[in-house]
Amino acid sequence: MKNTFEVRTDLAVEEKESFPGNGGEISGVSLREWHRADSRIKMTEVKILDKKGEKAMGKPMGSYITLEADQLSRKDENYHREVSEELARQIGQLLEGEDYRASGFHVLVVGLGNSSVTPDSLGPRVLNNLQVTRHLKVQYGDEFWNGRSMPVISGIVPGVMAQTGMESAEILKGIIHETKPNLIIAIDALAARSVKRLGTTIQLTDTGIHPGSGVGNHRHSLTRESLGVPVMAIGVPTVVGAAAIVHDTVSAMIAALSKGMETKGMGDFVGSMSSDEQYDLIRELLEPEFGPLYVTPPDIDETVKELSYTISEGIHLAFMGEEEE
Amino acid sequence: MKNTFEVRTDLAVEEKESFPGNGGEISGVSLREWHRADSRIKMTEVKILDKKGEKAMGKPMGSYITLEADQLSRKDENYHREVSEELARQIGQLLEGEDYRASGFHVLVVGLGNSSVTPDSLGPRVLNNLQVTRHLKVQYGDEFWNGRSMPVISGIVPGVMAQTGMESAEILKGIIHETKPNLIIAIDALAARSVKRLGTTIQLTDTGIHPGSGVGNHRHSLTRESLGVPVMAIGVPTVVGAAAIVHDTVSAMIAALSKGMETKGMGDFVGSMSSDEQYDLIRELLEPEFGPLYVTPPDIDETVKELSYTISEGIHLAFMGEEEE
Amino acid sequence: MKNTFEVRTDLAVEEKESFPGNGGEISGVSLREWHRADSRIKMTEVKILDKKGEKAMGKPMGSYITLEADQLSRKDENYHREVSEELARQIGQLLEGEDYRASGFHVLVVGLGNSSVTPDSLGPRVLNNLQVTRHLKVQYGDEFWNGRSMPVISGIVPGVMAQTGMESAEILKGIIHETKPNLIIAIDALAARSVKRLGTTIQLTDTGIHPGSGVGNHRHSLTRESLGVPVMAIGVPTVVGAAAIVHDTVSAMIAALSKGMETKGMGDFVGSMSSDEQYDLIRELLEPEFGPLYVTPPDIDETVKELSYTISEGIHLAFMGEEEE
Amino acid sequence: MKNTFEVRTDLAVEEKESFPGNGGEISGVSLREWHRADSRIKMTEVKILDKKGEKAMGKPMGSYITLEADQLSRKDENYHREVSEELARQIGQLLEGEDYRASGFHVLVVGLGNSSVTPDSLGPRVLNNLQVTRHLKVQYGDEFWNGRSMPVISGIVPGVMAQTGMESAEILKGIIHETKPNLIIAIDALAARSVKRLGTTIQLTDTGIHPGSGVGNHRHSLTRESLGVPVMAIGVPTVVGAAAIVHDTVSAMIAALSKGMETKGMGDFVGSMSSDEQYDLIRELLEPEFGPLYVTPPDIDETVKELSYTISEGIHLAFMGEEEE
Repeated sequence: MKNTFEVRTDLAVEEKESFPGNGGEISGVSLREWHRADSRIKMTEVKILDKKGEKAMGKPMGSYITLEADQLSRKDENYHREVSEELARQIGQLLEGEDYRASGFHVLVVGLGNSSVTPDSLGPRVLNNLQVTRHLKVQYGDEFWNGRSMPVISGIVPGVMAQTGMESAEILKGIIHETKPNLIIAIDALAARSVKRLGTTIQLTDTGIHPGSGVGNHRHSLTRESLGVPVMAIGVPTVVGAAAIVHDTVSAMIAALSKGMETKGMGDFVGSMSSDEQYDLIRELLEPEFGPLYVTPPDIDETVKELSYTISEGIHLAFMGEEEE
Repeated sequence: MKNTFEVRTDLAVEEKESFPGNGGEISGVSLREWHRADSRIKMTEVKILDKKGEKAMGKPMGSYITLEADQLSRKDENYHREVSEELARQIGQLLEGEDYRASGFHVLVVGLGNSSVTPDSLGPRVLNNLQVTRHLKVQYGDEFWNGRSMPVISGIVPGVMAQTGMESAEILKGIIHETKPNLIIAIDALAARSVKRLGTTIQLTDTGIHPGSGVGNHRHSLTRESLGVPVMAIGVPTVVGAAAIVHDTVSAMIAALSKGMETKGMGDFVGSMSSDEQYDLIRELLEPEFGPLYVTPPDIDETVKELSYTISEGIHLAFMGEEEE
Repeated sequence: MKNTFEVRTDLAVEEKESFPGNGGEISGVSLREWHRADSRIKMTEVKILDKKGEKAMGKPMGSYITLEADQLSRKDENYHREVSEELARQIGQLLEGEDYRASGFHVLVVGLGNSSVTPDSLGPRVLNNLQVTRHLKVQYGDEFWNGRSMPVISGIVPGVMAQTGMESAEILKGIIHETKPNLIIAIDALAARSVKRLGTTIQLTDTGIHPGSGVGNHRHSLTRESLGVPVMAIGVPTVVGAAAIVHDTVSAMIAALSKGMETKGMGDFVGSMSSDEQYDLIRELLEPEFGPLYVTPPDIDETVKELSYTISEGIHLAFMGEEEE
Repeated sequence: MKNTFEVRTDLAVEEKESFPGNGGEISGVSLREWHRADSRIKMTEVKILDKKGEKAMGKPMGSYITLEADQLSRKDENYHREVSEELARQIGQLLEGEDYRASGFHVLVVGLGNSSVTPDSLGPRVLNNLQVTRHLKVQYGDEFWNGRSMPVISGIVPGVMAQTGMESAEILKGIIHETKPNLIIAIDALAARSVKRLGTTIQLTDTGIHPGSGVGNHRHSLTRESLGVPVMAIGVPTVVGAAAIVHDTVSAMIAALSKGMETKGMGDFVGSMSSDEQYDLIRELLEPEFGPLYVTPPDIDETVKELSYTISEGIHLAFMGEEEE
């Protein structure tokens, strides 16, 4: 069974990779990989098409687009521009058919997470860089918008439950009720399965945010169903669950040991225990005492800083187009 | 006319002082001053009783309580405790008749202002120190509350319009609609008329927040009328309008010059111009080009840091009583 | 006498403008103004050539280069790039003759000011964005530098005296003694004379930092004489002294009043008092009670954020050249 | 061999516990444990007495005092006061014989670590709360000190190598050379061996900071030998190395499995591999690809905030005594 444990990863692309015969067919799931010519960014789209796919992947139906680039968190302006442009293009794809650059269109960007915990601060930091426009209309009147085809952008950092006593979903429902956006874009730090994903991947999806996802572990979903508005989610993995690390190391250790060593007994034992069983055992041993622990690299502050800039630029480009000509 | 210019000060106590024959009677306004025995805090209550008082003071009917202490921003734990306790006592007074320490009572504390502009960051900083409790009920269930008579505290930092594209009032209306608090406490940095008020005064009022008040100049009111819930406001002056400074200096300059100098002509001229006329002229000269400018002392960061702690403690004490025994 | 009051402005270009017959000749001071073709940046160079110039300008001998642009603090990437490139070019000009891009060359960049007071946080924020390289040599050994002609960059945020108990000069002397840089670049927020300079001007000088300059009012100088190493200073005005504001307003008020009004007496009086006398009087009235007060616009956080990025990029370009190609 | 792997823990008390027959005698190491009457704080002193003890413990000779309390990071003012007082008392003990409260005595407090990475920000945050006094002497002259017996406190946040390009040791050597302190107190976030130590323990030692210790892994030592001044170090564990977590889980897993299961082969294998061999294998598998990874709990921001306040108060009490009378 795939879904005996829920949050091994927030990345659909990792979920897909974890299937035996990696790259093999799963019923109800389609996979597409490509590189744009001259681009250093590897693109992947995982589409979950039906209930069967949902069950296999442990994630809801919809599109999961991944931008991968080894040096995503490097300080290289040209590179970041390239990523921002690709992100803008993909946002556009997901909104196909919508007149999302029209004057009447209103996007509410939500920065999830805790600004005072570095690996959880991606959302608040993106909002820090975001240029909102909704108040301009209020300040300068409708004529400001005349002749400009520009959607309305607003933004909110709802904070985390330990700071507010409220679920993000409660805060957002209220704001949506008052300001009636056409689209929510939720930004969140994600948990990955593999350390090499940290700071090298951006995931964009039209399925919103689901319970248990993100670094801070939301309990309520932020989706079209729960909020009444389509919800796009943009995330970057910044942590790996400690249980995942242990699992990987144990596997590697076992593999190392079984090679030509006399530890036959262990090899046998391993054969008799599935990866899921191993993982469940590890989680059982790790978590009761301390709750979920996360692993994060020491330079995560740089990663979050750089990528929050890249993502806010991607949103600007998607909705407002080029700044100059 | 008192109210030809709107935001000379957010402090009722300064408004009161500005009347000729300071301390004299104003119809519709009552004044009470006292010291608690052994206390270093000077207390003042200005009550605006009717429409006449509203017109004279340029502020809505209600109670305005001021705690003044020369060294409010000093790092002295005992002193701060004293101020927190007095603040808690006054919050209790304003809520007299309400069963505000009952388990069902829900207070939403709102941190107005911009966390990245030091003198405007009082509200966000108070919320940083605030211990919310509303989520505990959700997390641990009703039995958590059994046997504890503890009101529910939630908190929000709505951000400023340039960051969110939304008015604080819009964000709050939505959240109130969702979470139905019994009371709002809004924390805000204030503009004073006199530099010596900066960091030495806390104002507590049951009238809420009004258009044009605060450092960031809200345009929408946060009041029982606009939000449907009683709104208490706690503020500390952290800036003085540049126009006020100019006005004071001009007055002082003129006074200095007229004493025994041959500048009779100037003295005559001053006599012929009222203080309001002078002030309006100054504002007219100052603001068109640059917008409102604020004056703030260089150690404002320490003041805001210390007082945000004192105020959050005052709220804890008011609603939860002593922490330990 | 020009120099009866010391810190009216940290900008040489404003000092120059304040001379009667603005643009007129001052002995010992040369002025050059230009625009690069297609550039939106106005360039000015004030050179103080000798003791006479020093006395007239109240600033030490050396070059003061100003980049001015109305919308310097706008979020426009192309524009910022233009400014960064111009800044890099001017840094290069001031270092003419030095082999400042050679591998052996070591620049220590110093971020002066207080990171927790918004208008004083320019220096620390530039350092936040700066890419230092000195440790790479230590980490990867000399071979890292082989084939790369790249100067060594190090950086320090010394903090302010109220936080450290030490003068920046003391901290820097120690660090210089240990690490032997060839050049110091000190970044500092400046006080301007005129509100319209705030966030629209960058000053670059080869004369270092002098007592009483900057927002935080250093008391010790950071110069080649005091530190034993050449000191370049880059600054942006983020505050105007309250005294300057008062002075300007009084002047404007007087001018407004004297036009066709019967306030002859006042006009006469004004004629009899020099601008310096007026200013000294204003300072005398303003400061004894409250210390120096500063005026700053409410959106100063955006200005500081944008310009700290522009300046760090300018330094990168000056010493490391184009990032890619 | 104890010391085949270096940084399993920065806590001497954990090193001691790791010996077989926990609590047993180790040659060259003495252990003392006590509770002050009515105190909720458990005290432990590990003394490393000679070379043998150094070798066994993998730490230099000296005293390692630990304050442990389950709820050290709770927001409880009285509790924190108790901890601050105990810390002050222990600082005093380590300085026995020194006239450390005399007017001439100068303490330089150093906040190690990276203020923008939450679990590494303890040092900078303590410095944020610290009241330095050295500049008062400079500002108000010697008469300020007359009649007051108060040592001189200065403070510095040197930053991390990726921000400065310099080792903390280089920066400190320079500052010591200039300002000649009598004592250094270095504050640093530590790595623990066990998750249950995170945020519940403060370690105080007279041995300074050693290569490889701390969250950020200093490479140069900060000791009396390297700096020429006695160095006291105060630390709180905020992370656990991922390798330690893996090791613990593997051990627990093996223990769980061997109980009554048919996995005899594995049990045998385990018997044949020492704990150190296991750990080394784990590190070998974990680190080559990703560098050292750290595990930290999601509420680490609260822990660091609370304890930084407690530690700064402890230092104030140690050197300046009670604030009031």
